[in-house]
Amino acid sequence: MTIDSRLSALGITVPTVPKAVANYVGYKIVGDLVMISGQLPFKDGQILNPGHVGRTVSLEEGVAAARQCAINVLAQLKTAIEGDWSRFKQCIRLGGFVASTPDFTQHPTVINGASDLIGDIFGEAGHHARAAVGVAALPLGASVEIEAIFQIK
Amino acid sequence: MTIDSRLSALGITVPTVPKAVANYVGYKIVGDLVMISGQLPFKDGQILNPGHVGRTVSLEEGVAAARQCAINVLAQLKTAIEGDWSRFKQCIRLGGFVASTPDFTQHPTVINGASDLIGDIFGEAGHHARAAVGVAALPLGASVEIEAIFQIK
Amino acid sequence: MTIDSRLSALGITVPTVPKAVANYVGYKIVGDLVMISGQLPFKDGQILNPGHVGRTVSLEEGVAAARQCAINVLAQLKTAIEGDWSRFKQCIRLGGFVASTPDFTQHPTVINGASDLIGDIFGEAGHHARAAVGVAALPLGASVEIEAIFQIK
Repeated sequence: MTIDSRLSALGITVPTVPKAVANYVGYKIVGDLVMISGQLPFKDGQILNPGHVGRTVSLEEGVAAARQCAINVLAQLKTAIEGDWSRFKQCIRLGGFVASTPDFTQHPTVINGASDLIGDIFGEAGHHARAAVGVAALPLGASVEIEAIFQIK
Repeated sequence: MTIDSRLSALGITVPTVPKAVANYVGYKIVGDLVMISGQLPFKDGQILNPGHVGRTVSLEEGVAAARQCAINVLAQLKTAIEGDWSRFKQCIRLGGFVASTPDFTQHPTVINGASDLIGDIFGEAGHHARAAVGVAALPLGASVEIEAIFQIK
Repeated sequence: MTIDSRLSALGITVPTVPKAVANYVGYKIVGDLVMISGQLPFKDGQILNPGHVGRTVSLEEGVAAARQCAINVLAQLKTAIEGDWSRFKQCIRLGGFVASTPDFTQHPTVINGASDLIGDIFGEAGHHARAAVGVAALPLGASVEIEAIFQIK
């Protein structure tokens, strides 16, 4: 299966990314690495499931937010490789930040919402190193933020 | 304009960095990348605007702290390239940590204090990927900590 | 002294790492870099010194947790280089996350538990860039999580 057909089979539409108009950008290429900025769970212009996991956001809602962050990571990657998925080599690392209460402990389960999506799409080449931590707060009140590093051809 | 003249025009003096005397150091070079340790907003030996943004530190004070962190990032970079700015190639990534209350949501605005300074100095080559998150606390009570990756020649 | 003899002299046994059975893995190699996932202070199957530093975990217990995280980082590295320490080139970066109260400020001291161990083992080649921050919560209630980047031969 191609990446495009796997995305279709999973019912995922990778959104188009507007060009950044700030001093920071959605991704930066260095050598064969693409460093992707921390992505929020934007969906149709809204933050999906805002709040803190363990307080106003359930575990399942946190997982869904992480999955949406991963879709937006893929949107940045697709822009970086100009839509040519044959240039994908491997996923190197995800950095997963979960806005959580001090007593929440299931951050790995939340970030699996992103890791599992990337594994489902890319298979073993999608397997990655990662860090999953619980932070005090995230931009725009998001419950999850995910940054990534990919290797491309 | 050269980097030095831009720094002058912006009224910025990049401080001299003392040699680290610990098992961690201010920067590490690997290939053509310089990985710079998380920098605090030290200014004249004091932490600028300590505390939590959203509680005792205002948005404007957080922005100023982020800008000071960026100046200290540049001090590490300048040491890494032995003062020769012609070796600067591009800024790859900033990692921005803001000590914030759980209800604070404007972390991107705070970290813009660093991103905008780097954009002002280096132009498009200064544009970078980044993550901006809100953490529970930072070393020495700082309100902002910023780490960075640069590519050099 | 070889790395193995230094580990022996420090009384450190680097544990064996089970193969990951998830979409994220303990480490990923890209070029000559090994990116190691955030490691928790697991010791004999238990999290060492869980809780928040500044509340239920003392500074000394946090330092011990960080040291244990570093041992687990080394376990991943050892697996990546198939047990051949002559392939170690240098430690590039540690990312240190401390579950802490908002008023805790000694995160660098905690993360020194990891930095000092790596410095003791590898000497100057072990000196690294790092970030040390205080987060709201960590997976499984751990007080410290540490990720790392190494360069290998």
